[in-house]
Formats: sequence, C-alpha cells, structure tokens
Amino acid sequence: MRREVTKRRGNRTHRINSSKISGSPLSIQGVGALAAGGRRWDVLVIGAGVIGLSTAYHIKENNPQLSVLVIDRSAASGQGDTAKSMAAVRDTFTSDVNRLLARSTIDFYKHVQSKLGFNLNLNLVGYLWLLSKNQFEAYENITNQMRKQGIRIKVVDRDELAILIPDLVLDPDTEQSKMIGLESVHKALHGLDCGTVAPELIVKFYENEFKKLGGEFEFGTEAKSLHLGAKTPLGLPGEPFVWQDKVFKEVETNRGTISANTIVIAAGIRTPMLLDPLGIDCLVKPKKTQIFQVRGDSVGRLLRTKGFNEQNTTPFTILPKGEVYFRPVPSERSFWVASAAGIGEPFKFEEEPTADENNYKYNIYPILSEYFPCFANLRPINSWAGFYDVNSLDSTPILAKISNCVIVTGMSGSGIMKADAVGRMAAAISEGKEEATLFGDQRISTLQLGLTNRAVPREEFVI
Amino acid sequence: MRREVTKRRGNRTHRINSSKISGSPLSIQGVGALAAGGRRWDVLVIGAGVIGLSTAYHIKENNPQLSVLVIDRSAASGQGDTAKSMAAVRDTFTSDVNRLLARSTIDFYKHVQSKLGFNLNLNLVGYLWLLSKNQFEAYENITNQMRKQGIRIKVVDRDELAILIPDLVLDPDTEQSKMIGLESVHKALHGLDCGTVAPELIVKFYENEFKKLGGEFEFGTEAKSLHLGAKTPLGLPGEPFVWQDKVFKEVETNRGTISANTIVIAAGIRTPMLLDPLGIDCLVKPKKTQIFQVRGDSVGRLLRTKGFNEQNTTPFTILPKGEVYFRPVPSERSFWVASAAGIGEPFKFEEEPTADENNYKYNIYPILSEYFPCFANLRPINSWAGFYDVNSLDSTPILAKISNCVIVTGMSGSGIMKADAVGRMAAAISEGKEEATLFGDQRISTLQLGLTNRAVPREEFVI
Repeated sequence: MRREVTKRRGNRTHRINSSKISGSPLSIQGVGALAAGGRRWDVLVIGAGVIGLSTAYHIKENNPQLSVLVIDRSAASGQGDTAKSMAAVRDTFTSDVNRLLARSTIDFYKHVQSKLGFNLNLNLVGYLWLLSKNQFEAYENITNQMRKQGIRIKVVDRDELAILIPDLVLDPDTEQSKMIGLESVHKALHGLDCGTVAPELIVKFYENEFKKLGGEFEFGTEAKSLHLGAKTPLGLPGEPFVWQDKVFKEVETNRGTISANTIVIAAGIRTPMLLDPLGIDCLVKPKKTQIFQVRGDSVGRLLRTKGFNEQNTTPFTILPKGEVYFRPVPSERSFWVASAAGIGEPFKFEEEPTADENNYKYNIYPILSEYFPCFANLRPINSWAGFYDVNSLDSTPILAKISNCVIVTGMSGSGIMKADAVGRMAAAISEGKEEATLFGDQRISTLQLGLTNRAVPREEFVI
Repeated sequence: MRREVTKRRGNRTHRINSSKISGSPLSIQGVGALAAGGRRWDVLVIGAGVIGLSTAYHIKENNPQLSVLVIDRSAASGQGDTAKSMAAVRDTFTSDVNRLLARSTIDFYKHVQSKLGFNLNLNLVGYLWLLSKNQFEAYENITNQMRKQGIRIKVVDRDELAILIPDLVLDPDTEQSKMIGLESVHKALHGLDCGTVAPELIVKFYENEFKKLGGEFEFGTEAKSLHLGAKTPLGLPGEPFVWQDKVFKEVETNRGTISANTIVIAAGIRTPMLLDPLGIDCLVKPKKTQIFQVRGDSVGRLLRTKGFNEQNTTPFTILPKGEVYFRPVPSERSFWVASAAGIGEPFKFEEEPTADENNYKYNIYPILSEYFPCFANLRPINSWAGFYDVNSLDSTPILAKISNCVIVTGMSGSGIMKADAVGRMAAAISEGKEEATLFGDQRISTLQLGLTNRAVPREEFVI
C-alpha cells in the first residue's frame, strides 16, 4: 500500500507541476543563493503555499515598486500542505469574520474563472451535511443565522434525500451500525455556494500574476531560523539585549541568509517552528490529515446524481458520525474520503507524513459503508497525508504583526477557501494599515485577528 | 559559577524539604506502585506543585468520601517550578478575573497565617513600579480602574521617592544609561496589598491539610502518558475508534499505570507534553525564568527602608526598563533579581534548566546598576532557573474539563498568588459545577477560563 501511495502521489505532484519542474524556476530566473542573499529585499515571504502566494501577490499589486521575494523549501509553488488538501470551499461559517473571508475568496475565484478566464476548476457542487435529529436541532439556530447573513443554505428532507441519493441508507440498522451507534438521517443541510477547486490552479494563478508584476521566487530554499537584531545596533557582541528594541533582521536558510525590511511568515505548520525559538506563540499546532482515494463501479452512480448541481454529482458530503466526509472527484472517477478526527489524534509534526490504511479501515469505512453500502468492499487505491495548522482556540486565521514581521497562520484546514481574503489582509498589515479591503469592496479590521487583543468568536460550524 | 549554583540550589532544596526527604513519604505511607496502581482512585491529581496541592485539598475538602491520590515525579511536594518562583503576590491586575483570583488567594493566605496560625511568611512589603513619564501616562487609566475596583494602589512622587529610597538614581545620565536608553523615573506606583510569601510553607500547609483528610501521595511517580478509552468499550483491538465517545482511562507512569474516575492535570509546563499526544491544545508554552541572588554590604540599606511597610524594606521593585525587577529577601540579607524577558527568549523546555550568568551581566546588571548604583560590582552568589507555563493569549489561568479530565494550567508566572482560588475552581470543575465559591464567598463562573468559549480579557498589567 505504502509504495503505491508514494508512487501515486509522485504522479499527482508531477502532473500538477510538470511545467514548473521541467523548466526549473531557479534556472529560468537565474537567481542563485548569492543573488537572493546578497541584496536586501523590501519584502521576503516565507512559504509559497496558497497563503504565501496570495499575500505576495497582493503586496506586490499594492506596491509595485517594492522588491518582493518568495522562498519555499520545495522545488515549486504549492507543493506543501496546499497540495495535500481536500480543496473544498464553503461559505457556511457562523462567525462573521470566517464567513466574510470565505465569501469574498470564493467570489474572487469565481471572478478569476469567469471574468479573467483563468480556469481554477471551481465547481460549486455544494456541501451536504447529513444530520441526525439531534444534530439538526443543534444546528437549527446556526443555520437560521447564516441564512439571515445571506448564506444560501437549504434544508433537504428525508423523502427528498431518498429520491436524490438512492445509494444513501437513511436508517442504518445492521449489527455493526448499532455497535457504532449510527443514527438515522433526519434531514440534510445543503450549502449551495460551496464546492471544490483545484489548488494547483489557484497556485498557478497567483504565481503568474505575481511574476508579471516583477515578483521573484527562490525555490529549494528552506527558512531555518529568524534572526532578531537591535533596532539601533551598538556593534556589541551578544546583541540584541533585553533592553534594546528589536527588529527581524534576516532569515537563515539552507542557502545562506536573506535580509528584508519586512518578513512575512506564511509557512503553514512550520510557522511555530520558526517563532517558538523567539518566544512568540502563534497559537497553532500541527494536526495530521489523511485522505483516501476510493474508486469502483459501485460508487459510479454517486458521481451521476441529478438535482444538486450543474455538475450532476453528489455534493461534498459530511456523514452524521465520526466527522467522516467525502469529496466527489469526477475527473478521477473517484472519491476522496477523510475523517476530521477529534481528540485522540496527536499534535505531532512529521517531515514525511503518510496515511495509515487502518485509519480508513477501522475509523472511516465502518461508518461510510453503513450509510453508503455502495462503498462496501472498496479499498483505497491511493492515499496521502498533510497537516493543518490548527488554531484550537477559535478555528479562525491568525494575522499579526510583531515589529517588522507579519505572521499569517492558523488556517485550521480552511486556508484555500480563505486565501484571497487572508492575502489581502496580510498585505494591508504589512503596510501598517488597520483595515483591509477584500474582493467585493467589503472592509475588515486587520487588528481583530492578531495574537494580542484577539477578538474572534469561536467558529461553531467546523465540518 | 555553575558548580556553585548547583550546590546552592541543592542546599536550598534540602533546607526547605529536609523533613520530607529524610523521612521519605513513600516509606512513611508504605504505598508502593502496586498499591496505587492496583486500585481505581476516584480522583488522581498529576502534580504536587502548589496548584495540584490546592486542587487536591479542595476536592478532598468538598468530598471527603472520595479517594484522592496526588502523584509527582519528585521525591516530595513543591519541588518543581513552585520552588523556583520569585514567590511574590499581588492583587494589581486589570482583568476582573485575575484580580479576583489573586485577591481571594492573598486573603486566604492572610487567613491561614493570622487565623489558623500557620506561618506562610506572607509579608506585605508591597510592589513598587518605578515608571518613566510615558509609562506612567500609559498606566494612568489602568491604575484608576484598579483603584475603583478596590485595589489599594498609590502614586509615589519623585520627591517622595528621593527621600524614601536615597539609593535610587531618578535621572540616570551616564554614557551607559544613554546607550541603553534609560529614562528618568517620573513617578512610582505602589501596590499596598502585595508582597512576598514562602512557597514551601504554602505547599506544606496544603499537604498537611490534604493528608489530615485522608488524601494520599505517591512521589517519584512521573506521569508519562494518558490513555484514552472508549466510554462504552466493545473489547475490540484498536479501541477507541473515532466513532466512540472517549474517556481518560488511566495514566501510565514510570511505576505502572494508575486508573481513576477523574484525572486532574496540574503538571505545570509538563501539561502540554501530556495533552499534545491526544490532540488537545492547552494553549501554553514553556518560558524559562532565571533568578539571581545578589548580596553585599552596599545594598544593605535597601533592606532597611522605612516608610513603605511594616518590614521596613524596599518593596518588590520593578524598574522602568528591560522588565528588570527585584525581591528583597531580608532573611538571606540579599535580593533576588530577574528580568521578565520579552521576545527573543525561546519557548523551549529543558529537563534541568540553569541560569546563565551572562543574562545577569548583559541584560539585567546594566539597568540595575544605573538606577541602583549600590548594586555596582556585585555579582550573583547564587542563581536558579525554572519555567513558566505561559498562556500568551491572555496571561490568565486555564481551567477546562474534557470528558473526565480536568486541566489546570497557564499560570503564566502568577500561580502561587492565585493558587487557592484556582484550586477551588478546579475542584468545582471536577464536580461538574458551573460556579465556584472562592475564599471570601465571592462566586465565579467556571466556564469562562476554559479552552473553548474562553471569555477572558487580556491582562494588561503583566509586571
């Protein structure tokens, strides 16, 4: 299993980025370690994931005169956790700020695709929460609130579900389902302006636009540590001392040090590894995510489901138990399946995370195959694992500025669906602005998502 | 220096706990690993620091019928970071909850000492913040608010300071002080109901009271990991699965596993090490603290300062720069000096932390010796280091219950001054109560300090 997985991932990575890998950005630009390290950049962005790219692009867009360098440890953009995402997008959040970030980002992606003509594979197939009676009642207030805020979320009754998805068992009653404690599906919530997207295309879009403006990249360049310096250096050994005001002076990488006036850390789960040594708590921990790809004739009908969306597929669907969910991937004639695990899953970083088939077998499959017997006896043909940079406190992005360092982290698994708004906010923060203007002209305070005086309601609709 | 330090620490520890070490609690009680592990306890408290002890005592006091076991990795109580504290107490906090926790704890300590006749070496010598003009103005609103809340905090003018503390240089003007950027002392704030206390006596008090009620200890017993189990076990290998409700089943220690119906984690900075593997983010990181003991004839006059307190000593004093502060220790004819370092100090745990004399030499001494030239040329005769369990978010304790596990952490360097109130709250939480009654009969919601729906204003008066 593991060999196959690696191979498949290899293929997938290759397919996504073949153009970048064959014509290495390093050779194209002719930028070596000395070139990047030898000059002082106006802005250095650590991380060429979707968040770093969006931030770099918006900084450069707002300030074309600034020299902006993006570095990444991989050989190309979007090769870290961005590539390992479910890449689903939704606007169904209870907190105003999450809703605003997601709504404006999805609108921007729509705009890129329909107005700018750059395909992002944005498919608004919808989100479908299958809910037990208790769950439905618990969510009722939240749903009404979201609807008042203009979120298009629809209740789907049992009878309708039975017609729309004949493969769904509304009342699981086997011995196994009793043992697991599966409840009947009472109703479903259907988020209409939700769907799926291709992260590699979003990455490509931002990368292209950033380059067009003169933005530069250095790949294969891993930030190892950040060096603080005294704001007013005295030339003494041991600086900076506690009585000196501090600035972020430079970034040490595997290819030499790079200096910049502003340093943006958009390094996902590597962010705390860079900030802990400086005594800055960015409030995130690494949570492993495992995705399993399942394919088979028996689930083919779920990819040809009329009535939910233009794509005629079952929506991105969340089951009533174990936070099990699946994403339809019609182009691969398969589903990506995962579980948003609760307590018991460690916060533990691994350099090369892999998915554990036992997780599918014992945690996901028993639930999936009871509600959707069409998955019975299908084993994953592929799997991969990545990390969420989880902010357990309020599941909302963290955007902070400390001295001349901008910290963008805490995406908590919803980075792709908020990337454009987060990038605009991070750009505004880097410019010292207290307000950012998002796509669609909505304004948002840049202060509320900081590390100090954080004023964010806890998100109540986490899958 | 380092050898001397180790030796001195050894002495100090020995002095404090000689009775406990010579008559080992293990042998006294005759409780072996099997005895503790072989039965199921009603409550297991991990950590015999001041927080664990206060919690254990209040649980047992409220529920004498419960079997309560406290375990600790050390050979006796209070040997971890409790012993390494500055052990100062203050009620000058801006957040209602911090003020309440500290106020009621100090009142309880007063009660223990004056009514119960158990000496805690509580000396209300006061806190003295020496402030520059800018600092004083920045704190003015905060001070007025605290005063309205009944906190006794007094402004001391320059002229008065000059008379009370002739050793203080109000207007440092040497080359060095200009280089460091030292400002004139504009005024001072004097917290009257603040002072110092002996942690080893507080520890002894709680330990004695807990034992009188039948509470038990197992020392030399280190919690290595917590085991989750299914609430309703099915007897299958690999339990608990994601679809099962979970309970904290037992604690694995170096001396076997211990089972309990309720597990309280009061393990200071070791708390995240126990919870991270379960994917529970308790929001704290380890911040090293270093204390230097300084003694000399030249500073003797600071220990004989009339006008501030009954003890006729300079109060616990905070300087205007570098967050440098000192604690008078008349019984040792010396001062304990430290700096509450800002960014630049790493979050990094060490098993055997030691103080670095360079920290004294380059960070603390230059500031200390300019404002108080009587410290000039004095080098530390002793030093030690410990850890704060820092909650960077709001510098306020964290009290949460997840399943049958109570988490008490995030003291952020003010554990001793809040220990009694925190213990009462943790006891109430362990009993499933939504409200706790503190010493002095004030009530406080137990929900506001949790990990979810945390509703705590950021503390603005952090040293």
